[in-house]
Amino acid sequence: MKKMVLSMVVENTSGVLSRVAGLFSRRGYNIDSLTVGVTENPKLSRMTVVAKGDSGILEQIRNQLNKLEDVKEIEELVPEHSVCRELVLVRVGADNANRKEVMALTDIFRARIVDVASDSVLIELTGNQAKIDAFIKLLGDFKVLEFVRTGITGLNRGAGAEDDYENTTHSGEV
Amino acid sequence: MKKMVLSMVVENTSGVLSRVAGLFSRRGYNIDSLTVGVTENPKLSRMTVVAKGDSGILEQIRNQLNKLEDVKEIEELVPEHSVCRELVLVRVGADNANRKEVMALTDIFRARIVDVASDSVLIELTGNQAKIDAFIKLLGDFKVLEFVRTGITGLNRGAGAEDDYENTTHSGEV
Repeated sequence: MKKMVLSMVVENTSGVLSRVAGLFSRRGYNIDSLTVGVTENPKLSRMTVVAKGDSGILEQIRNQLNKLEDVKEIEELVPEHSVCRELVLVRVGADNANRKEVMALTDIFRARIVDVASDSVLIELTGNQAKIDAFIKLLGDFKVLEFVRTGITGLNRGAGAEDDYENTTHSGEV
Repeated sequence: MKKMVLSMVVENTSGVLSRVAGLFSRRGYNIDSLTVGVTENPKLSRMTVVAKGDSGILEQIRNQLNKLEDVKEIEELVPEHSVCRELVLVRVGADNANRKEVMALTDIFRARIVDVASDSVLIELTGNQAKIDAFIKLLGDFKVLEFVRTGITGLNRGAGAEDDYENTTHSGEV
């Protein structure tokens, strides 16, 4: 089982998303996450797809994506040479009795409370997948009412980037 | 022209994404952004779709989405009653001569530098669409090398939430 993160620049046509998704689904492959958003060029979008599976089949899918006319660029983001991030919004039950404990956990993860109601708070957190998984697991001590994750997005590191920077100061922050 | 943000809970099947995308593309409708990620239940994913267009046709698309077997829940996120966020990673040209100016702008927007190379920095920013647009616009004074946006994700506010909280303290932060 391999996990593959593909970053693609695609033409902003109405059919591109269903063509990309179709390449995975025709092989019965689930996409773990997919994000697609605008770029500096209104005619192009950037799409980030995460899929797990047999590495031979993933390689086939990648080659077929490459052949799609509306896929302009495709590159794999590998952990050592890229920065991948995800955003999550979590609504957690919190009243006067335990709001402080929820806030403490939020601070430790450098998350932010973005909305507050009498019996819940809405927390925003950004990080790599491991950090977000850890946060959601620790929130299990409280009542998680609902959450939504964007799925992963990422970019390759710059040439000559300090390879250990992220590991020592950022991913290591929790 | 109406902008519609739909939040859906869908079954985690391999075909659901291409079926949802297909409903939009068959009408020639571009999806502005789409995010799909896991939920607390491994059988379900949450998908957030943003589309702009004629309100009658958007309403038709919404009704047809509702009829898809693998769409379990569908709700519209309207600005007054929801919190919407997006994550962006931007690589900006920055060397010893102007790194401080880039850092100052990063601080003002409460963004984070997550990777640094000799001639560029990689910045992570979370916010609503207006905040991210403003940040990218201001970065235009520097050299924006590349950026990637997750697209919007969001949740409805809690019952009895402080309606003005976000506007006064969060969206108003820049």
